[in-house]
Formats: sequence, structure tokens, C-alpha cells
Amino acid sequence: MTSADFSHLDGKGQARMVDVSAKEHTRRRATARCRVVMQPGTVEAIAHHGMKKGDVLAVARVAGIQAAKRTSEAIPLCHPLMITSVHVDFELGDDYVDVEATVEVVGQTGVEMEALHAASVAALTIYDMCKGVDRAIMVTNLALWEKTGGKSGDFRRVDN
Amino acid sequence: MTSADFSHLDGKGQARMVDVSAKEHTRRRATARCRVVMQPGTVEAIAHHGMKKGDVLAVARVAGIQAAKRTSEAIPLCHPLMITSVHVDFELGDDYVDVEATVEVVGQTGVEMEALHAASVAALTIYDMCKGVDRAIMVTNLALWEKTGGKSGDFRRVDN
Amino acid sequence: MTSADFSHLDGKGQARMVDVSAKEHTRRRATARCRVVMQPGTVEAIAHHGMKKGDVLAVARVAGIQAAKRTSEAIPLCHPLMITSVHVDFELGDDYVDVEATVEVVGQTGVEMEALHAASVAALTIYDMCKGVDRAIMVTNLALWEKTGGKSGDFRRVDN
Amino acid sequence: MTSADFSHLDGKGQARMVDVSAKEHTRRRATARCRVVMQPGTVEAIAHHGMKKGDVLAVARVAGIQAAKRTSEAIPLCHPLMITSVHVDFELGDDYVDVEATVEVVGQTGVEMEALHAASVAALTIYDMCKGVDRAIMVTNLALWEKTGGKSGDFRRVDN
Amino acid sequence: MTSADFSHLDGKGQARMVDVSAKEHTRRRATARCRVVMQPGTVEAIAHHGMKKGDVLAVARVAGIQAAKRTSEAIPLCHPLMITSVHVDFELGDDYVDVEATVEVVGQTGVEMEALHAASVAALTIYDMCKGVDRAIMVTNLALWEKTGGKSGDFRRVDN
Amino acid sequence: MTSADFSHLDGKGQARMVDVSAKEHTRRRATARCRVVMQPGTVEAIAHHGMKKGDVLAVARVAGIQAAKRTSEAIPLCHPLMITSVHVDFELGDDYVDVEATVEVVGQTGVEMEALHAASVAALTIYDMCKGVDRAIMVTNLALWEKTGGKSGDFRRVDN
Repeated sequence: MTSADFSHLDGKGQARMVDVSAKEHTRRRATARCRVVMQPGTVEAIAHHGMKKGDVLAVARVAGIQAAKRTSEAIPLCHPLMITSVHVDFELGDDYVDVEATVEVVGQTGVEMEALHAASVAALTIYDMCKGVDRAIMVTNLALWEKTGGKSGDFRRVDN
Repeated sequence: MTSADFSHLDGKGQARMVDVSAKEHTRRRATARCRVVMQPGTVEAIAHHGMKKGDVLAVARVAGIQAAKRTSEAIPLCHPLMITSVHVDFELGDDYVDVEATVEVVGQTGVEMEALHAASVAALTIYDMCKGVDRAIMVTNLALWEKTGGKSGDFRRVDN
Repeated sequence: MTSADFSHLDGKGQARMVDVSAKEHTRRRATARCRVVMQPGTVEAIAHHGMKKGDVLAVARVAGIQAAKRTSEAIPLCHPLMITSVHVDFELGDDYVDVEATVEVVGQTGVEMEALHAASVAALTIYDMCKGVDRAIMVTNLALWEKTGGKSGDFRRVDN
Repeated sequence: MTSADFSHLDGKGQARMVDVSAKEHTRRRATARCRVVMQPGTVEAIAHHGMKKGDVLAVARVAGIQAAKRTSEAIPLCHPLMITSVHVDFELGDDYVDVEATVEVVGQTGVEMEALHAASVAALTIYDMCKGVDRAIMVTNLALWEKTGGKSGDFRRVDN
Repeated sequence: MTSADFSHLDGKGQARMVDVSAKEHTRRRATARCRVVMQPGTVEAIAHHGMKKGDVLAVARVAGIQAAKRTSEAIPLCHPLMITSVHVDFELGDDYVDVEATVEVVGQTGVEMEALHAASVAALTIYDMCKGVDRAIMVTNLALWEKTGGKSGDFRRVDN
Repeated sequence: MTSADFSHLDGKGQARMVDVSAKEHTRRRATARCRVVMQPGTVEAIAHHGMKKGDVLAVARVAGIQAAKRTSEAIPLCHPLMITSVHVDFELGDDYVDVEATVEVVGQTGVEMEALHAASVAALTIYDMCKGVDRAIMVTNLALWEKTGGKSGDFRRVDN
């Protein structure tokens, strides 16, 4: 494997923002997932605290949506993109909350990093809001789940 | 567990930014870690690509440092903080890169979220720069490793 | 009225960024207005202070233009847009300054929120620069005034 | 009234960021309010849409909290501040939603602009989420309601 | 020369963001350069410090790339742009480091300011990292070097 | 000169944000200057265009003030700072505009980079607003002019 295989590095191994000027504008979609592992009592508290269900998840959803839009500020070599759609969803398990973020764009590059960034910030927001009651929360298995559109073809992760 | 246990939720379960006006300014430090799992060939390429070793990690380090400073923009209920120190380090394994971020502050709240945010953005930057050669990279085990200072006492994760 | 009527909420009432991937790129324009009510002496001071007329309004104009560009960072479910034009104008009355912001784009969504955000930040900048001499300034009647382009048709507010 | 009365303008009427280097760090608090006027059916929809009450308000609350933290980026001559607390609350009337934002800091300048900025962005977020069902929403009476701490003394608005 | 010659000022000499709604989307490129003048020993230290060559330049390169993307936030009347490529390169002389930034876009306005902003922030980052050992560093000759695409025709600076 | 001399590089030559946790909070001030070289007709146009003198400079002043506040976002290893004062001034020559930015803080690190960043963004804003009438503008001699406060002692540039 040579440095030419890393599209973000030029011939001398230096960082650059890959030139996508000549690429077509096509519709692209990416879904990323991660799991926030916590104590069962913490999951229960997120699900049922008092009368206002779901506020932790509502805040985490907003954080994930906003993170998707600011991905190119956080990840140095990402292109700015005018994303056209973001969904952030949660699924509660016994001792975890699963986060799934789906981002769409009509553009010249994919939205893989936007989906991953949205999922990770949503997960950290859950962490932040629960850390007072559960000090050992862990975010795990943050990965691309599915990707469609673009020249490199569709992708679907075989396991997670 | 009631909503009163979640410091970011008020009595009605609504989000708020916790009042820390009356807390002392003390020196606080937090270390977070995560692992970026990838193919052995990808680790090797990061380590030895041509003559300019380490450019992937140099970019990821900068991204992590900048993320630490902007944590309160990404995580909705975090307080703005004037962090006084950030270190982001990497350790290369056979099929992974370990990321460790340490943040310090003299302030009224801890820097746990800053360390986690720095580690996750550094990890995603590695992902971004290597995704062209390895489509199944996964970020895992993102967690607080150690924390000192503040009223709630020191913390050290027993396993990772 | 059901939650289906709120385009920013999905079937379960949860926030999402509306999918506009399939919408046409058309030219759209929106104008928003608001009034900053203050003491007559404050208006006069804005108009005539010394030899450098208009500095308060010059700063407010820049603030409004910059706010238009950053609307999708402030309003969580707004799409990022490459706005193509922003004008912020002022009209001085006896005891008020009227703010009018017009934003244009060639895009898939309208610029209503961009115009409102520009007008409100310009108004708050006037407030900020005058609050030392007038403690009871009020921003009022912030509303969409006119809108053209897009599928939902043109709109013009009947009164203000 | 001369330009010397405008603390943000120097002797020549030019903008500057006022020097607060020598001011004491004291505890300060400010509360701002505004009213989002809308159709009665829109208020009802916000209050009761399906099973997930309050999502519009949850998103608006997060937006307001985040806006408070970024006030010095939006309002050109505001000082950066490490605010220690933000609360954004809503009260539903027949044909309006009232927004109240309270911000606290231990610092050298007040948080009046932070409270006003939080209230206005929360109001615009409500607007954004409801504009699909109600095209004539108006934000009105955005003003400082109460202020404590600082050299200029406490303030309480007589009417609103 | 009248105010009509300044495209950023309207007929009354007030700032505006120029309307580019009707302009074609064409491919545009701009290259800017500047020189960071320093002591010979500082250049040498940048080039050869220990085993990890080039870290100062790696950080400066990332800073320049990120600055290119955020130009419309820093320069008030710049349009937001979805830049498609950024390269930041350095050349070491006896007592200087030359910085060259090239930015590309397919859009309605040029990327002259993006290239200049990238070069200046990369230069200031070098300054920041070396100021501990060399207190009299100076950034000089920041100018547009070459520009292609757009209605106003190609440009190439005759001297620098 | 070894890597130990570069405070932003650790023993292995890797970037870090220097630890300032233990430093005293003292009052610090820095002044930076640069010169924007242009055609005499352009200077004249800035000075006298129509009835609204100085709008170019008013916009540039705001841009410089805002840049000072966001220095730690642009320059990767700068600490976030709560700056307490910013002044940006201009002096018009025959074929140039001189920019001077002075920043103050009560903090643990100096504001040298803040002053330089403010001056450079103000200069680029002048460039941006005049580039339609003068294609060969150059920003030159961007340097620290004076610095007071802090452990390393006062500094005053001997020439510029």
C-alpha cells in the first residue's frame, strides 16, 4: 500500500482536500450506527422519567442533526456540503441505547462522515446528560452501516 | 431513579444548562480513550507511508485539539470553558489505532466531555483519511479513562 | 391538526431535518421586518452622533448579513444554504428604527428563516450598541413580509 | 446626547469592543422575554400533537441554550463570556407562546444580550417548526425583563 | 471613482452582499501566496527538529485548509461556497517560509478570498508555533498570485 | 535549537496545546499592525466615496473585532480566551491603508495571536471590498508591534 492509496494525502504524504470539482452531482445517502452502553437503570430513566418522556433523546437528536451540518468544520479534510436531509433515531435495549443517523445529499461527495459525526455527537450528548447518574457509560461500535450513491458503489456492512 | 438524578433536566424533565455559578474554580483533568479498529494493512500504511511518517496522525491530532475547544458548541448542555491544555496521543496496534485525549482546565466544571469529544473527532479524522483504502473501519470503546479534580472525586475506569 | 402537518416532525412527533433532495433548484427571495422601539433621543443619537453618521447602523448591517449566512447553525432544523444575496436596510422613525432584511438564493428551500434571523440579529445589535443610553429598548413585530419562489407560492403579509 | 454616551463608539464614533479589563468579576443574571403570536390551532398543535408532547418546545429550548453560548459570535461588540447557567421556558396562551430566557454568569460584563439572543433564537425555532401550518406567525415584545448584578444596578421592566 | 465601482457598496455607500443569483456555475481557481520572514535558525528548526520532520508545517497546512472552508464567516461580505479542493504548500528559504494556497470551486463567485484567507491563517499558524523562539517574525507580501475562471477573465500577478 | 524550544511541540515533535493551568491571571495587551498596499485612487475612493464616508473601514473594523474573538478556532494551538477589549484602527496613506489592532485580556496567556488575527482579517476585508476596482492589492508587514504583560516581559518592535 503506498501513499497514493490515501486520497487525502498527496504524492509526498501531505494532507490535502481531495479535488472533486469534476465529479457529478448525484443523490447519495449514508447511515451510521453506534451503541451507547449503560446501566439498565439508566436506560429505564431515559425511557420513563416522570411525565416528559424522551427529553434526553430529544436533545441528543437535535445535537446529532446540528453536528451533521457542521461536519466539515470538525473533520479537517471533509468538503462542505449542503445536506438535504438528516434523521437521527434511537432504539432502547436492556443496557444500551442504539443510535442511527441517516444523512442525504445531492452532491459531489458522499455523506459517510456526516452520518458518523451525527451519530457520535448524539451518543456523546446522551452520555453528557446521563453521566451524573452513571459514570461508566461507553460508546461503542461506531461504524458505517449502509451507503448508496456515488461512483464507488453501494455498501452494506455485513455485521455490526 | 427520578428526573432529579439527571442534572441536565429540571423538575419537569426539561433540558437546562446546569447552574455552576457558585462552584469553585479548581484544577480539573480528564482522559478519554477509544480504539479505531481497521485492517492490519491500513495501520501499516498509517505508520510507514513513504517518507513523511505520521501525517494521518498529525491531522487527527490537530482535529482532536480543535474539537476539545469547541465542545460546548457540539454538546448542547455543556458549559463554555477556557481549557488550559490538550494532548492527543496515538498508539498503533496490529489492527487498530488507540486514541487518548487529555484535557485540563481551571474552572467550575470538569472536562470529561471535552476529552471524549477530542478523542472521538480524532478517531473520525483517522477514519476519514483511511476510508478510501478500508471501508469497514470501526470506532469502539469510547469512554472516560480517568478524571481528577472537582467535587465528585477522582475516577479511574477499572477496565477498558 | 395532526403532527403530519408539522413538516419538521415525523410520524412520531420527533424532530427531523425535512428531506429536500428531490426538490428543484429555483430562485427564491424572502423579506423580513422588525421594529426596534426606543426613546426619541436614542434615534436622534443614532442618526446624528458627531461627524461619523451611521456607525451603529453600519455595524448592525454587517451583523445581519453575517447572521443570514449562519442561520442553519442557529436554527436546528434549517438546511444549509448557499445564499446569493443579502440586503439589510434601516428606516428611522420618531421613536423607532425599522429593520428590513432581504435574502435570495437559488436552492431547494426558501430563505424565510435567513431573512428573519438577519433582521433579528441586526435589531439586537442596535439594542446592544444603544443599551447604555436607553435601558428599555424593545424589538417588536418581527415577521415575514414577503416571499417569492418555491412550490408553496408567493406570500405577502397583509398588515404589519 | 453625544457619541460619548454610546459605550460601543469611541470619540470619533467608531465601533470598538468596550474595555472591561479592570471590572470586577461579579455574579450577574438577566432575564429576557418575547411572545410568539400564532393561530390558536397552532398553539394547540404544539401542546397536544399525538403522544410526544412538547417536541417543538424541546427543540426550541436547545436552540435557545446554544444561542446563549454563542452570543459574542452573533452580536459583533459583545464580549465572550463563560456563562454558568441558562434556562429557557415557555408558557402557552390562547394564541401565543411566551418565551423566557434567563442567563447567569460570574464575570465582568452582564448577560443581557445573551438572554435576549437566547429568547429570540428559541422564538425563531418555534416559528421555523410551525411555519408550514401557520404562515403569519410574528415574534413580538422582545425585551429585557429583569437584570441583577453589575455596577449599573438592578433593573426590572415596568411593563411588557 | 464613484461608489458604484465598489461592488460591495450600494448606491448609498452601504455594505451589501452582492447578488450573484443570476451568475453561471463555472469552475474557478485561485492561488494566493505570502512569505513568513524569520531567523535562519527558525527555518532550520522547522525543517529538521528531531525525527518528526514537518510537524509545524502539517499543523499549518490543516489550519489553512480549514480556514479556506470558513472564509465566509470571517470576511463579512463573502458568499458561502462549497469549495471542491484546497491545497496548501510550503517552500523553505534561508530566512523565510513561503506559503501557497490554491482553492477550487464550481460556483457563482470566485475563490480569491478563500485562497488569501487560507494562506494568511497558515502563515499565522507558523508564526504561533515559532513565536516562542523568534519574536520578530513577519508575514509579508500576501497577495493573489493567479486566478482562472469567471466572467472577469484570468489574472496573473506580474511580480510578487 | 531542539524541539524543546518550540513550546507547541512535545518531546517527540508532535503538536500539543501548551499547558497554562498553573500560570497567573495577569493583564496583557498586544498590538499588531499591517499595511494594505493599493492604488492611490483606491485609497481616495475609500476615503471619499459619496456622502457616507468610511463604510469600507466600518465593515473591516467589525470583521477585525470578530476575528479577535474567534482566534482559537482559526489558529489550532491557541487557547480560548475571554478577551476584554479590542480596538481596530486605520490610517490612510497615499497608496496604502495601515491597520492597527490592539487586544487586551486578563488571562493566563498573551493576546499576540488575537491582535495579529484581527489585523489580518480586517486587512483582507478591505481587500475584499476593493478588489473589484483594484486587482493587485497586497497585504504586507503583518507583525507584532508591541506587547505588555506576561512572564516573558514587554516587547516593542524596533522597526516595521
